[in-house]
Amino acid sequence: MEREPTLRLRVFDLNCWAIRYLSKRRQERVRLIGDTLRRDSFDLVLLQEVWSEQDYSDLMVKLASCYPFSHYFRSGVIGSGLCVFSRFPILDTLLYQYSLNGYPYMLQHGDWFCGKSVGLGSGSRARVGVGVPAPLLSLPLQLHAEYCREKDAYLPHRLVQAWELAQFIRHTSKAADVVLLGGDLNMHPEDVGIRLLRGWTGLRDAFAEAKHFEGCKNGCTLVPDNCFTEKSELLPFPLGIRIDYILYKAISSFTVKCEELKTTTGPAPGVDIPFSDHEAVMATLHIQRQPQAVGDTLGTAELVLADVVAEARTEVGVGLRAAQRQHYSSGRMAVLALLLLLLQAMAALGTLAGLGPDQPFPKLSFCLLAFLALGVLILSTGLHLFHTMEVKMLHGTEDQMWMALRVLQERP
Amino acid sequence: MEREPTLRLRVFDLNCWAIRYLSKRRQERVRLIGDTLRRDSFDLVLLQEVWSEQDYSDLMVKLASCYPFSHYFRSGVIGSGLCVFSRFPILDTLLYQYSLNGYPYMLQHGDWFCGKSVGLGSGSRARVGVGVPAPLLSLPLQLHAEYCREKDAYLPHRLVQAWELAQFIRHTSKAADVVLLGGDLNMHPEDVGIRLLRGWTGLRDAFAEAKHFEGCKNGCTLVPDNCFTEKSELLPFPLGIRIDYILYKAISSFTVKCEELKTTTGPAPGVDIPFSDHEAVMATLHIQRQPQAVGDTLGTAELVLADVVAEARTEVGVGLRAAQRQHYSSGRMAVLALLLLLLQAMAALGTLAGLGPDQPFPKLSFCLLAFLALGVLILSTGLHLFHTMEVKMLHGTEDQMWMALRVLQERP
Repeated sequence: MEREPTLRLRVFDLNCWAIRYLSKRRQERVRLIGDTLRRDSFDLVLLQEVWSEQDYSDLMVKLASCYPFSHYFRSGVIGSGLCVFSRFPILDTLLYQYSLNGYPYMLQHGDWFCGKSVGLGSGSRARVGVGVPAPLLSLPLQLHAEYCREKDAYLPHRLVQAWELAQFIRHTSKAADVVLLGGDLNMHPEDVGIRLLRGWTGLRDAFAEAKHFEGCKNGCTLVPDNCFTEKSELLPFPLGIRIDYILYKAISSFTVKCEELKTTTGPAPGVDIPFSDHEAVMATLHIQRQPQAVGDTLGTAELVLADVVAEARTEVGVGLRAAQRQHYSSGRMAVLALLLLLLQAMAALGTLAGLGPDQPFPKLSFCLLAFLALGVLILSTGLHLFHTMEVKMLHGTEDQMWMALRVLQERP
Repeated sequence: MEREPTLRLRVFDLNCWAIRYLSKRRQERVRLIGDTLRRDSFDLVLLQEVWSEQDYSDLMVKLASCYPFSHYFRSGVIGSGLCVFSRFPILDTLLYQYSLNGYPYMLQHGDWFCGKSVGLGSGSRARVGVGVPAPLLSLPLQLHAEYCREKDAYLPHRLVQAWELAQFIRHTSKAADVVLLGGDLNMHPEDVGIRLLRGWTGLRDAFAEAKHFEGCKNGCTLVPDNCFTEKSELLPFPLGIRIDYILYKAISSFTVKCEELKTTTGPAPGVDIPFSDHEAVMATLHIQRQPQAVGDTLGTAELVLADVVAEARTEVGVGLRAAQRQHYSSGRMAVLALLLLLLQAMAALGTLAGLGPDQPFPKLSFCLLAFLALGVLILSTGLHLFHTMEVKMLHGTEDQMWMALRVLQERP
């Protein structure tokens, strides 16, 4: 039997940490990333945290000759920070914004303002000689950051995101031949969110599957050796943590194998700084047509999958109850502020009508108190609306997971 | 050649106008809708504007025997108002919330708070004898309302929604055999948004395709004869308008034909009120397996499609420029308020340090002015952030449309 031709696909993934005014030596690093990408010719580059459109434009101009196709995904107040550069045409794009993404009042964490999303770029392999057109879905993405592992208040939000991401991939990938996902998932390899994502979509982890690996120990991408990382956050993990992934999956009559996986290890060659506070992940994939189509690999471990979905559903339930408590207390606060305002209005009217004692309070404090009550009313109403949405989305995800569990359990 | 068996699918679609405390005779109407649905056995029921979860629960209990499967889509502050009842199992659901949906400060229009979305329910036809499993995607949905046709400020938002909806359908429907979409699109049949949606997805309009039609003239679903409609809004349209649709499409080796389309005409039989301020749309579809698979019907009229996309892109561009102006003016307002606050702070500090004249203003007015400036600062910053998002999403949609135009024009 004649062997089918193989396509060798080199993928580059990096969380660039390019926040204007905040990230250290940003412009220098973006220039360095551009130079490296131009020199080492990858086929597909998935970048995250390119928050400034100017940085994207600069990269686009610099990389136009080797990566003629690119796309920047716009969303949220600041943007999604996601972009793709490709040697092959990008035929279509779609952006899915997660329904939950942290709290607007946690200004120091800022996730809410980013409009974290998954971008979908759909390209065609028709021109690169795999034999037939093999649409490729590539998804750069970033999930909600983890700020404190011991008391991770954002776990339910991250699980909702992981679930929505998995559902998005399941529903959009049906006509693709190969799905490629690269990004900063902000989850350790054994976390429930990663297990959920991999189990529910059938995606494979390039690090676990790679024939050859070269780079930081255990494939870590946030390492204490990197001069930009917060050393204190990594104290419990002396080797670092692995939170950036390249995941892939062949859908129809194709097979994908990870030939090689590399991570950068600190400073780029010839300079004193690394690309970012994260290490880059680079994978070489071999895509080959199979003589016979094989079914979806999902279904081999459905019992394990049901356990993972149940575990995730429990965590989402914990988040739901916390959200319901906050929903209730912000509502109560709004009602109290409203009552105070009404009381003041009545007292003022009473004084005006000459019914009560003259000027029970000094005018200034009375006025200040009214403004304070008004401020509390506005803020707590806003919070109440926000938590209403949060409760709805967590509840909706719990429902969807329940439906998934039922389908998993009913299968013969 | 033996004829393949035909599946007869009866679909019911209605905008229920069931807003708690606001909609007239809501509970009576919801009860009426439930009774009718129980009596006339449809296969699939797509409802919109069921804003109260209690109404959904009541319907679910009442309809459990004839529609054992149902789903309520949760989103936004108030909810999406969307739900599905089905005779056949619902295997999976996904909710896509449009990225733009009106303005939070237009309280009287309220669209922003609804989290308008398209729900996706994916079911299996395996048990109903079409021969093979034929996944069916059914999408209940609602787009942004049109409040003034002459000066329609929401047109760009509705176009972004129509585009996102079309993209969502294109990307999720690949593995389905039949796509069914029912809902209140808030667009007249000849509007650019409808042409865009139909052209870009290949969906067919059940009203235009139906062999037999029975109901309001021209298939109108918002008619002056209905006792709940605002007569003044329909003055330019003495027959009414058609804004509720059932659209469908066969994807792979199936054909769908619309055998019959009906709309309700005013009061339900035996009572004095209609179901809602909208008329219900009921379609009978015949789904049949084709001996040979046919290609996607898209591509027959690509020149026309390119014109429609270009027209929509122009309108989105108009919206983008308006959003940029609002973005700029809210930013300027915030800066002015900040300057005023700073000036006041300097004056107060100066007085305290004994540098300036004593008490240039009475304390109370000084204090009131400061609170006013603070209020303006908070509001205009909020607006500025909102318009930043709006600009990003309009810009992103313009980009996507440009990419679509390029692909359309490059095709041989």
